[in-house]
Amino acid sequence: MSVEAYIARLAAAVEQALDSAIPVEWDVPGKLREAMMYSLKAGGKRIRPVLVLAAAEAVRGDESAAEAAMPAACAVELVHTYSLIHDDLPAMDDDDFRRGKLTNHKVFGEAMAILAGDALLTHAFHLIAEAALSGRLPADAALAITADLARLAGASGMVGGQAADMLGEQGVTSLDEMRYIHLHKTSDLITFSLTAGGRAGGADAAQIDALAAFGMRIGLAFQIRDDILDVVGDERVLGKKTNSDARRLKVTYPYLIGLDASRAEVERLTREAKEVLLDASLRKPDLLLGIAEYLVSRDR
Amino acid sequence: MSVEAYIARLAAAVEQALDSAIPVEWDVPGKLREAMMYSLKAGGKRIRPVLVLAAAEAVRGDESAAEAAMPAACAVELVHTYSLIHDDLPAMDDDDFRRGKLTNHKVFGEAMAILAGDALLTHAFHLIAEAALSGRLPADAALAITADLARLAGASGMVGGQAADMLGEQGVTSLDEMRYIHLHKTSDLITFSLTAGGRAGGADAAQIDALAAFGMRIGLAFQIRDDILDVVGDERVLGKKTNSDARRLKVTYPYLIGLDASRAEVERLTREAKEVLLDASLRKPDLLLGIAEYLVSRDR
Repeated sequence: MSVEAYIARLAAAVEQALDSAIPVEWDVPGKLREAMMYSLKAGGKRIRPVLVLAAAEAVRGDESAAEAAMPAACAVELVHTYSLIHDDLPAMDDDDFRRGKLTNHKVFGEAMAILAGDALLTHAFHLIAEAALSGRLPADAALAITADLARLAGASGMVGGQAADMLGEQGVTSLDEMRYIHLHKTSDLITFSLTAGGRAGGADAAQIDALAAFGMRIGLAFQIRDDILDVVGDERVLGKKTNSDARRLKVTYPYLIGLDASRAEVERLTREAKEVLLDASLRKPDLLLGIAEYLVSRDR
Repeated sequence: MSVEAYIARLAAAVEQALDSAIPVEWDVPGKLREAMMYSLKAGGKRIRPVLVLAAAEAVRGDESAAEAAMPAACAVELVHTYSLIHDDLPAMDDDDFRRGKLTNHKVFGEAMAILAGDALLTHAFHLIAEAALSGRLPADAALAITADLARLAGASGMVGGQAADMLGEQGVTSLDEMRYIHLHKTSDLITFSLTAGGRAGGADAAQIDALAAFGMRIGLAFQIRDDILDVVGDERVLGKKTNSDARRLKVTYPYLIGLDASRAEVERLTREAKEVLLDASLRKPDLLLGIAEYLVSRDR
């Protein structure tokens, strides 16, 4: 099976699971539920949940851990979605469109967008705990996944990266600062995806460390690739305007170290990521490596 | 010991635990950490965490479950604090002051206030999972507490209540709608506090049900009492202006059913709460009953 076909198959399974992520029997105000589902089903590429499922399969050697991994796969997509809703708010990046659709607050208003984000974040933790309480995921894995998610999505993780990005709009000057932002704003949730899949698949401590090291590098490479595409990408292929970073005066890798050095950094990170993964004695690392290769060489 | 002294002692222990709730070694952007701690240490009465600790003691019969209960006690205060930060935002209630201090967004800006709220909510789940991973709280209790918190603070809980409140500003007309808002906006986190303390103290299923039933009634009574105080309270004792609900055209219990019927409802709920708790064969229910009595008869 090609990597693209494998990704498409996993993404389709995630898509279906997300439809019932918020229990229909829950007494949720209609508008709030609508706002949550609007952004959750807005056509995301499901990269993070696909990585969760692929990591579980890489560790286990087959698809038998897919049911155990699915709650964390949905959870990371809920967290990613909430972060987009809040990032798009007028007080933050003030975006009217995302993936060609109106942003959440443009449709439902700012108050409902804030609350929809809060509710999606909160619900991510319910999915994981509930999977353990109903016996689909071992308790120790669920607790480790919960702690990882809270750390990597929180003040020292994704939210920390977003805060540094907002604060840095007065001028990011160093590569260290840029790296902190990319690492936490983007890479941390990718790292979470890999370790969560690993934990659901029964990985040992060394394998979890390797998956985290792999995720950190792939996540960083993925973000630098994004910076590069914003400069050299084809608008028709990307489906969005290029040079948006420059127009917003966002400091990026190409801006700080140039295009060639940025490309070299993507290559170095990808090479290191592969090495660390191949050393981890996973039963079936190939598809995971293929996805990584696909993510960092994409042209959109 | 008087109820007031007991509450003060538990609140002091919570205050100390909150100081180190966000690990100093975590690499959090300075401004974000400052914004989180500003609201967390803004002089809250710590009612919810006190209820967590008191419930654990009521079940256990002594203070031996205090260490197991403290993470959930801190967690509920983090969640309560995040909800206040987001509720105060211009897009929501647009408040400049809370407890005589500038609200978070007035000091740190809207973007940082949104992120500080997000980070506090996220960190609440870390506290609980970490307590289990480090052996201070049994795994099954931690998972149940996590699921409870996510349900009672999320789309069908506190956030749902806030959403209904925002949507209802076009006009809450029925007691059912009013009850939904109070139940979820206020009562759900009180209910969580009681069951979380119970779980940390090793309560059985029937005791958890009783603590939830107790919490729901006390929480609702507490909120109706708040509505009443807004009409008849002494501004000098309350430390805030009265009739703010009427000025904001907020529909309340006194508005819908009158002051006398509202007072009767507080009494009925309190009586029922006591009955359900006394039937639960807790080892030491007295202090918990005392706190409940204190909360619903307060004049500020």
